[in-house]
Amino acid sequence: MANPTAAMLVIGDEILSGRTQDANTHHLAGELSRTGINLCEVRVVGDDARAIGEAARALSSAYSHVFTSGGIGPTHDDITADAIAAAFGVAIAVREDARALLAARYDALGVELNEARLRMARIPEGAELIDNPVSAAPGFSLGNVHVMAGVPQVFRAMLAGLLPRLNAGHAPLSDSLRVDLPEGDIAGPLAVIAREFPGVSIGSYPFFEDGSYGAHIVVRAPDGAMLEAAMARLRAAFGGTP
Amino acid sequence: MANPTAAMLVIGDEILSGRTQDANTHHLAGELSRTGINLCEVRVVGDDARAIGEAARALSSAYSHVFTSGGIGPTHDDITADAIAAAFGVAIAVREDARALLAARYDALGVELNEARLRMARIPEGAELIDNPVSAAPGFSLGNVHVMAGVPQVFRAMLAGLLPRLNAGHAPLSDSLRVDLPEGDIAGPLAVIAREFPGVSIGSYPFFEDGSYGAHIVVRAPDGAMLEAAMARLRAAFGGTP
Repeated sequence: MANPTAAMLVIGDEILSGRTQDANTHHLAGELSRTGINLCEVRVVGDDARAIGEAARALSSAYSHVFTSGGIGPTHDDITADAIAAAFGVAIAVREDARALLAARYDALGVELNEARLRMARIPEGAELIDNPVSAAPGFSLGNVHVMAGVPQVFRAMLAGLLPRLNAGHAPLSDSLRVDLPEGDIAGPLAVIAREFPGVSIGSYPFFEDGSYGAHIVVRAPDGAMLEAAMARLRAAFGGTP
Repeated sequence: MANPTAAMLVIGDEILSGRTQDANTHHLAGELSRTGINLCEVRVVGDDARAIGEAARALSSAYSHVFTSGGIGPTHDDITADAIAAAFGVAIAVREDARALLAARYDALGVELNEARLRMARIPEGAELIDNPVSAAPGFSLGNVHVMAGVPQVFRAMLAGLLPRLNAGHAPLSDSLRVDLPEGDIAGPLAVIAREFPGVSIGSYPFFEDGSYGAHIVVRAPDGAMLEAAMARLRAAFGGTP
């Protein structure tokens, strides 16, 4: 069976304005690679309910899973939960179990659970909570859309709790070869080899180091025999170092 | 007149697999903010002609400009130029001016301009070249789609040459205030202030530092009077430091 597919939806004006560099996508990409879920597409949109909703619906119907980051805090520009509920036509309200999580935390901190903080307990109807061991305010999964925080520490903690409950695939086996030749010298034979191994993904990632060009050739294959056959062929063609 | 809008399309399996972290989007976002072009959406797709073409067409019709990075090198997985030509229904072939740029560079380096390298001179019909002062192989603009390299040094150099020839808008004026209170404490009054200044964008970006929570409140306004009025109101409400 083919591996599950996934998309990431990053939400936040601060990414689009250049104020903040998104780090959650790179983290998610690495975790999904290890898990055997194929990340196929990423989108970044601003704090705009229509943009969030349109992207979430399009990605939800195209892929097995959609992961979102950002826009679930207490301030007026945190609109992700409401936008997702509206996009999928479900009601949203403060939910008792989410409220209890916040109450316990703010009680322990001696801080008031005011109206703004209570917004973080607004959960779309039918969603499943995603645990937030860092700062309590939960994420949620609505169908195949997994809504998480933008703050990297919280995103990572939520993802760590979420991933084990998703159906994963088989992580492809991967190996790589460093070739100290410019890509233009290896491209011809590399294309021939790529055609010889149609079930194997062979990528070339150039680098420039100490005044010389080279490339990392990255091979991903569904099983060890195919991986080793492709690697042997590449080593025979280019030499190279692991 | 409203500012031009833009989207970024990042192309490359290496981003989606988590091997490489995209740095070009953050650079572009900062440059466009300074230029007065509003970056509205970002997408990342793999080395797949259909995915590249569909995203490029959708973004090209939705925004004033589309910037792409990645997939214009000499290897078999560099398919951006062909995918863009196919998406917009134009022919693509080696173009003489692009070939001359490559020939001059490889001549100077004493390196053969072989078939693989010549692929980098394949330019869609009707496109305008984008100069590459780093490694010669040009990018191109086909209509409002600006196709550039993925290697960050090359992307930046191409963008620096491209931006002055685009119609820019007026960069919004921006200021920010650091408030050493948790977002949950400021969210209520902040929402009231945001409603008082409908033409002004007010964002709240939380941080956690030395054991305490705070937020940077970022204000963007179309003119100095509106900016100063909003900032004065925020300082009166929260105190805070610039």
